Amino acid sequence: MPNRLSGVLSPIVTPFTNDLAPDADRLIAQCQWLLSQNVGLAVFGTNSEANSLSIGEKIELLDRLKEAGVDTERMMPGTGCCALSDTVELTAHAVQMGCAGTLMLPPFYYKGVSDDGIYANFAEVIERVGNSDLQIYLYHIPPIAQVGFSVDLIERLITDYPDTIAGIKDSSGDWDNTHAMLERKWDDFRIFVGSESFLLTNMRNGGAGCISATANVNPAAIDHLYQHWQADDADAKQQSLNNIREAVMAYPMIPALKATVAEFSGEDAWRTVRPPLVALDRDSSGRLAESLRCQSFEMPGL
Amino acid sequence: MPNRLSGVLSPIVTPFTNDLAPDADRLIAQCQWLLSQNVGLAVFGTNSEANSLSIGEKIELLDRLKEAGVDTERMMPGTGCCALSDTVELTAHAVQMGCAGTLMLPPFYYKGVSDDGIYANFAEVIERVGNSDLQIYLYHIPPIAQVGFSVDLIERLITDYPDTIAGIKDSSGDWDNTHAMLERKWDDFRIFVGSESFLLTNMRNGGAGCISATANVNPAAIDHLYQHWQADDADAKQQSLNNIREAVMAYPMIPALKATVAEFSGEDAWRTVRPPLVALDRDSSGRLAESLRCQSFEMPGL
Repeated sequence: MPNRLSGVLSPIVTPFTNDLAPDADRLIAQCQWLLSQNVGLAVFGTNSEANSLSIGEKIELLDRLKEAGVDTERMMPGTGCCALSDTVELTAHAVQMGCAGTLMLPPFYYKGVSDDGIYANFAEVIERVGNSDLQIYLYHIPPIAQVGFSVDLIERLITDYPDTIAGIKDSSGDWDNTHAMLERKWDDFRIFVGSESFLLTNMRNGGAGCISATANVNPAAIDHLYQHWQADDADAKQQSLNNIREAVMAYPMIPALKATVAEFSGEDAWRTVRPPLVALDRDSSGRLAESLRCQSFEMPGL
Repeated sequence: MPNRLSGVLSPIVTPFTNDLAPDADRLIAQCQWLLSQNVGLAVFGTNSEANSLSIGEKIELLDRLKEAGVDTERMMPGTGCCALSDTVELTAHAVQMGCAGTLMLPPFYYKGVSDDGIYANFAEVIERVGNSDLQIYLYHIPPIAQVGFSVDLIERLITDYPDTIAGIKDSSGDWDNTHAMLERKWDDFRIFVGSESFLLTNMRNGGAGCISATANVNPAAIDHLYQHWQADDADAKQQSLNNIREAVMAYPMIPALKATVAEFSGEDAWRTVRPPLVALDRDSSGRLAESLRCQSFEMPGL
């Protein structure tokens, strides 16, 4: 069974070619750069435009990453789809290739579904994948998916599948929700916040780290706070992270992340997004880069 | 180019086997029964649990329907997915096999997307499918998909793709929205309401018909009102449809539709739903059937 994960992971933005095909070579290079910054690889997160990719495209990218020697023990691909059959296919592939874990959205098309229905979905996935190496990190992001996990549902899943339900990414943006989970003190259950703005608070309350959009552009500094959260200057470091985050979040998130990578790498191809997203215009991109440079922001080695 | 559609269509509930696989034989029989009631085939709608099926499962079902001789000129499969690549693959398949139209959700994972982004998605789909037979019926269902179509966006799509953008299913539940579209008087643009409760009003204002959940169980009566909306007893017929609809909608919609088909066909297999939905319990199912029988409801020939 893979070791459970902690630390900082990036939901990695997915590069596209001019004709909107996934660009595996560029993604491989980005993953290698993020690993060099000591940040783990949550490919196929919300920020990866994962739900704008087909299952076949995702499996192809996973295979290319593995062939390129990217460390699967640092990988937590998103594998939760609307359709049970899709989730099973993609999850089984990720486990078989040795991924440390999978980050799993609940099925998100139907709204107002019950805890019983979401439980049944996860039970079916676990039974059908049928692999004791499967480590599921629940992906709770109600602002986007609308469907989420109640604390009682999480406890039920952990109770029935203690070897498989490994943790959660809480992207509710609601610290009270994260805190309610931390207070249950579930055995070796890894609680990641979905924004580094909660990283220090999460660590001080027994959390496992963060999986955050901004780790695409500011990985080393976020990891530094994770490593040194007990240091005297931790609050100041947190404030510094918050300032960078706020500069990026002043623009639409995914286009802004891609524009930032393009500005600091000099690779314009990074600007491309798939519909329904729209790339950041050049003026906004320039202003964003300027506001980051004013904070002495850099992306060394990119 | 296929003729544009009007009348009553059913977003057909999808039967599953005991192991949750789609049951093509049972779906074929149900489509044939619905055609015998003069109702068109909007397979893969919301009520079909379409987003709980993979692209491969949907293509296989379409192929099986065609092989069985089900009339593709009466078919409007749902083909709008989160991923552009999936939408293109499924739509291209539906057009190539001769479907009269496709019912297309906007990409629905990312929220708060712009009209420009949704427009770009549809433009890419149309260009990539590249088939002059493509007839797109937009699927507007903001209560579930959250992402929808503004009236201005629809007009922009019609203006740029007049031979392709054929109509809309308005499942907003908001007559004012339907009326705002009807007032634009777009040339040969087919406006379907998403509930038969608006059918008479829609017909009196120049609409094309309805595509409604309840057409799974009450097809002949709904079609009768469509055919005879100018008759003296139309308002009474509308009220009668509303009563049946309200009896069904007292329970969770999709499980209730499937339970009704099971109760009136005697085929228990119809009760099965895929997670995250949960089948109606037997007590509720019996009470629902009883309330329908009290209104002299029947499903002749099922």
